[in-house]
Amino acid sequence: MQRETNATQKKWCGAGRSLRVSAISLYVFPMEIGIYSFAETRFDPTTGRQLDVGSRLRDLLEEIELADEVGLDVFGVGEHHRPDYSVSAPAVVLAAAAARTKNIRLTSAVTVLSSDDPVRVFQDFATLDQISGGRAEIMVGRGSFTESFPLFGQDLSDYDELFAENLDLLLKVREQERITWSGQHRPSIDDRAVYPRPLLDPIPVWIAVGGTPQSVVRAATLGLPMALAIIGGAPARFRHVVDLYRATAARAGHDPVALPISINSHGFLADDPGDAAEIAFPPFAETMTRIGRERGWPPTSRGQFDAEATLRGALFVGSPQEVIEKILYQHEIFRHERFLIQLTVGPMPHADVMRAIELLGTEVAPVVRREVGVTESQEGAAESQSEKVKS
Amino acid sequence: MQRETNATQKKWCGAGRSLRVSAISLYVFPMEIGIYSFAETRFDPTTGRQLDVGSRLRDLLEEIELADEVGLDVFGVGEHHRPDYSVSAPAVVLAAAAARTKNIRLTSAVTVLSSDDPVRVFQDFATLDQISGGRAEIMVGRGSFTESFPLFGQDLSDYDELFAENLDLLLKVREQERITWSGQHRPSIDDRAVYPRPLLDPIPVWIAVGGTPQSVVRAATLGLPMALAIIGGAPARFRHVVDLYRATAARAGHDPVALPISINSHGFLADDPGDAAEIAFPPFAETMTRIGRERGWPPTSRGQFDAEATLRGALFVGSPQEVIEKILYQHEIFRHERFLIQLTVGPMPHADVMRAIELLGTEVAPVVRREVGVTESQEGAAESQSEKVKS
Repeated sequence: MQRETNATQKKWCGAGRSLRVSAISLYVFPMEIGIYSFAETRFDPTTGRQLDVGSRLRDLLEEIELADEVGLDVFGVGEHHRPDYSVSAPAVVLAAAAARTKNIRLTSAVTVLSSDDPVRVFQDFATLDQISGGRAEIMVGRGSFTESFPLFGQDLSDYDELFAENLDLLLKVREQERITWSGQHRPSIDDRAVYPRPLLDPIPVWIAVGGTPQSVVRAATLGLPMALAIIGGAPARFRHVVDLYRATAARAGHDPVALPISINSHGFLADDPGDAAEIAFPPFAETMTRIGRERGWPPTSRGQFDAEATLRGALFVGSPQEVIEKILYQHEIFRHERFLIQLTVGPMPHADVMRAIELLGTEVAPVVRREVGVTESQEGAAESQSEKVKS
Repeated sequence: MQRETNATQKKWCGAGRSLRVSAISLYVFPMEIGIYSFAETRFDPTTGRQLDVGSRLRDLLEEIELADEVGLDVFGVGEHHRPDYSVSAPAVVLAAAAARTKNIRLTSAVTVLSSDDPVRVFQDFATLDQISGGRAEIMVGRGSFTESFPLFGQDLSDYDELFAENLDLLLKVREQERITWSGQHRPSIDDRAVYPRPLLDPIPVWIAVGGTPQSVVRAATLGLPMALAIIGGAPARFRHVVDLYRATAARAGHDPVALPISINSHGFLADDPGDAAEIAFPPFAETMTRIGRERGWPPTSRGQFDAEATLRGALFVGSPQEVIEKILYQHEIFRHERFLIQLTVGPMPHADVMRAIELLGTEVAPVVRREVGVTESQEGAAESQSEKVKS
């Protein structure tokens, strides 16, 4: 039993916090609340040139620092290769954040693994993990944006195959210090070791999915935690995705209770109920409409935005109380272990973002943690459930 | 003339400091003093496993922070993929250092460009540059250690060709936001832009050489600053390398006065003359003997070490006064603009390293700067020299 517990712990190897609690509560993770950002930049629509990258990155680092100070659990930074986003190298940005924070976990959100070298990705995040005292995570995805493919020479027709192959190599490098590996899209490795190793070994690798069943099944089959992006439509309709993940994990012999799920959504918080939408809508609409043009989405209207901001919609836009209610509502559906919010969908006033972070950390997170937190009886139930799954 | 000055400034784009002084003094750089480190780790000789990577990286960050505090100009971190070194991702480590420092320039030393993707290298360091407020530099080399080649799928028989091609791409990405490029060893790029751009544009790219004439000619022809490693033998014998660099730069139409040269050497400092050698020799001998076995060098003896530590030898081991004398002696030979010292050749006691950094910053650097610093008359002479070269 003790060995099982350790195995479960190693498999998830999530929040540093859970490593400090008793073995029994490893099976029921306290709800983690965090933020992810793409570090949107202003850009000149005529020339396409980025504007103010430096100040945006400085603001981002302040945001991460504040998120740590107010006790949030996770901060994620996305990878893009476009003029409207500042970060193409998440590990570099997160390393600067590591030097300015103490407890918060630092993750990519996401690493576009298909167009990167898995060995370099592992080394970057293992280094981040050592620097941060074991707070690094890698969230990998196939890439919602695909501008990195032509830049690094990948063929979009290999979209899924590249991801599967690179994930295989990443997990192998994570599992063993010295590896022999071969694939179709990257030079083979013949009995070579990869350094440095992470402090928290194995370093957490999450798979980010948009709901594609194939991606969900892959995450569950591999026994990797899943981050599910819900950025539009009724979240209740994603319940089957979570069910598929848990059922597949169980069939594959993994303990679903030890595989945390994160719900990642857009949103914004302000003190007064109406203010959050007033602040967030203009940049949100500009960004989603502009990106929508690339993808064939209809323009974003205020009516649609407001509808999504209601309890059963996808957007977490509102007062702290409204956001609390929405997280708890979704927790009834998903029983997820982590909630991450993207506060800046488009460039937003830094002071407003800082206030939103403060509200999330000081008013939302404590209530959510209390409401869905671990109790003695839940601990027992969780252990029983875990035993049942294993038997 | 003004345009010439700006061109020269952009070409060198070296220390932030020189950008703040008057245009005229751009031609004569104040002597910069700095440190580079490979972040040596202890490792288990039986299993080959790395030991204490986290504490070594924490010590390294303290060393960089102290180097900044005592006013040193540059700190470089090398890239290796071996159990005896902690850093395979210099930009990640330097980003953490950027968050803890204010003025010191941060550079790789070196980036093994032949086995990396030049676009990623540019993005990593452009990000570092934005985070650090314009303090990043890239020092590229063919790689003294070549363990990265089999890890990332390069063929050692392409050793020089890979470097030349990757350097070509790196410089192109640095020159233009949007590029079209093709080569033999990396997928081509068809009209794609690379983000983010660095704050100090163009970001400095130095070429590190060991004395190979081909590498020296390449650096000079491209008009790139050169870092010359002198880690053994009589430094005076390297004078022809510096002469070759300056003459080639002049023939290629570059202003050699605007192309700084760095001398990079091993050494150590302690308060008392004898102590530096006593502290530095044991790890130095172990490391150089072990690496020497891979390369066919003879074992390092104390007699040889002490001989190299004399004024005309390659090692900067001694009291602050001895190190000052040696830097000034070499400055008579090379008229170099930068001196970087590798204090840790092999794992060394952190407290001794910190003291050596303090001595270098507080006792050595001020004297060297004063002795070889810019004076009014030198400024005039430098301008004349610059004009002569251009005419």
